[in-house]
Amino acid sequence: MLGASTPRLAVNLSCAGGLGFIAGGTDPANLNKMLDESKRLLPDHQSKKFEARSDTLPIGVGFQLFNSNLNALSGALSMHKPAVVWLFAPKLEEDLRVWATKIRDVTDGLTRICVQVGSVAEAERSVALAEPDFLVMQGADAGGHGQRQSASIISLVPEVKDRLSAMGKAHIPVLAAGGISDARGVVAALALGADGAVMGTRFLVAEEAGIADGWKRELVKTSDGGVTTMRSTLCDRLKENHDWPTSYDGRAIRNKGHEDEEAGMLDVENVKLYKEELECGDSAWGPHGRMVIYAGTGIGLLRAVQPVESIMEETIRESRHIMDRYYVNAIASHL
Amino acid sequence: MLGASTPRLAVNLSCAGGLGFIAGGTDPANLNKMLDESKRLLPDHQSKKFEARSDTLPIGVGFQLFNSNLNALSGALSMHKPAVVWLFAPKLEEDLRVWATKIRDVTDGLTRICVQVGSVAEAERSVALAEPDFLVMQGADAGGHGQRQSASIISLVPEVKDRLSAMGKAHIPVLAAGGISDARGVVAALALGADGAVMGTRFLVAEEAGIADGWKRELVKTSDGGVTTMRSTLCDRLKENHDWPTSYDGRAIRNKGHEDEEAGMLDVENVKLYKEELECGDSAWGPHGRMVIYAGTGIGLLRAVQPVESIMEETIRESRHIMDRYYVNAIASHL
Repeated sequence: MLGASTPRLAVNLSCAGGLGFIAGGTDPANLNKMLDESKRLLPDHQSKKFEARSDTLPIGVGFQLFNSNLNALSGALSMHKPAVVWLFAPKLEEDLRVWATKIRDVTDGLTRICVQVGSVAEAERSVALAEPDFLVMQGADAGGHGQRQSASIISLVPEVKDRLSAMGKAHIPVLAAGGISDARGVVAALALGADGAVMGTRFLVAEEAGIADGWKRELVKTSDGGVTTMRSTLCDRLKENHDWPTSYDGRAIRNKGHEDEEAGMLDVENVKLYKEELECGDSAWGPHGRMVIYAGTGIGLLRAVQPVESIMEETIRESRHIMDRYYVNAIASHL
Repeated sequence: MLGASTPRLAVNLSCAGGLGFIAGGTDPANLNKMLDESKRLLPDHQSKKFEARSDTLPIGVGFQLFNSNLNALSGALSMHKPAVVWLFAPKLEEDLRVWATKIRDVTDGLTRICVQVGSVAEAERSVALAEPDFLVMQGADAGGHGQRQSASIISLVPEVKDRLSAMGKAHIPVLAAGGISDARGVVAALALGADGAVMGTRFLVAEEAGIADGWKRELVKTSDGGVTTMRSTLCDRLKENHDWPTSYDGRAIRNKGHEDEEAGMLDVENVKLYKEELECGDSAWGPHGRMVIYAGTGIGLLRAVQPVESIMEETIRESRHIMDRYYVNAIASHL
């Protein structure tokens, strides 16, 4: 969500009943600027529109640990105390402990720690290392980067809940991520035992998302995400991001670059063509273009570009509607 | 589920509130024998333990179309009239229409037709070709064979429901398959909009399942299915099944065969080692063995070998329990 999750997106999401995140990135000055802007965008602190401890900034910040400098970034966290910091993709898992400890230290324990993982084993180790305040279980449907080998949340979430119980860690809330694009996915996540749901791709089509119009257009146009998106490391190679730990790849819309690779094209040529298309503007997006369109399998559920507030209003309203259906069923099952 | 889904498993499942299936296989004499046995195993037809039209046999039969001879098999279907025939993996999609027409014809329209697919596009084409009475949407978590490229049911089921509505086919019930191993998955499937749920791997650990003890033992022992199982065509190559249409692969427990392949071993050597281990009995099962253990990502939710009846009783009871939780939530949300 780097670049996509603008301060305006994050703040509007927090004001609409969720918790919005910005992507922390690697540049401390830019992080400071984004947190400043988020603070400025917040409605009057007396507003009842969002719930947050008044001593934290009511948004979260996500970091990719493998290429981020904790010491450089911690100043901004100390100053702004975001409600949550979300840790993902450490070079060494031990780094989770280092980050969690330091962030809790510089924020006087006010900022909560969330760790995103993709397997039961990884969840277990992360809990032991960082004692996170939340765990995000990311399934294979998720757009963008994640563990190359993973289940979807259908089996991942219940198994992790059982494992946490067995570890005496049932108090750690689990959030489900990957393939959730509307209320049906949210309620399914709750049925699986999750304590909350994460939507990423859905917010890429928020009006507030800071991505190219061509990207948004393709997100709305594309359907059947299990076939039209795929997991691969190609997008990293095209962008010459060679630092990702080897267990990760990323899900994006299949495009000309993927096709050419399957037909045997070498990276050196594929990268060259990608760079040429960077100059092409809008026409470079889409299945016949070469731009990288990260997206989850839930892409087919995206119908329109909407303001964050209306995405949230719709999701909450429809979630209640589905639960009401259960309510009727539950009553019927007792008759 | 070929071999695993014995007549006893299917009948006990139908008697316990579900609909059990046998795998039809390719041999008409064997199909006849299994259907005869199923009929013999049925409790007194006056029994209230299962609901079925008395003019059909209250179990289903599944076929892999690409290697099955419809004309040879249709005699047994005509004689026994199973409640449902489940069609999967045609060589050409047009075969779905041929099978559906012929089966309806030879069973006087009594046997219902179910088609299993793995994408929205495939669902749409199958509906147009066969006008199935049910659609099974199989997600990427499923054990055994399925479409190589697919989403999990998290996004697949809601998108297919929307597509059916748009096609004016909302009356066709959708069943979710893939990664569902207990009540949490079942209720999640319903929240996603499915009209029912399919469990495969969970019934491999039924006492009634006709698979090797080593296979069952590994199913109960293995956890973290997103990492310990994987999709591949290796198992078909080891078993020298070269007839599967190219868009399919299968999910199985990662074992020595997968490891050796990743290290560069050629099929000719891997097949030889596999065949040698076929003689080894129990020790050939497991992650360090070479036997093929098909299983879905929900493998970590399997706790014990149980009779079908108790799997069903537990699943139904816990599903009601989860719905009751929603019932409380739904009331709370109206206060």
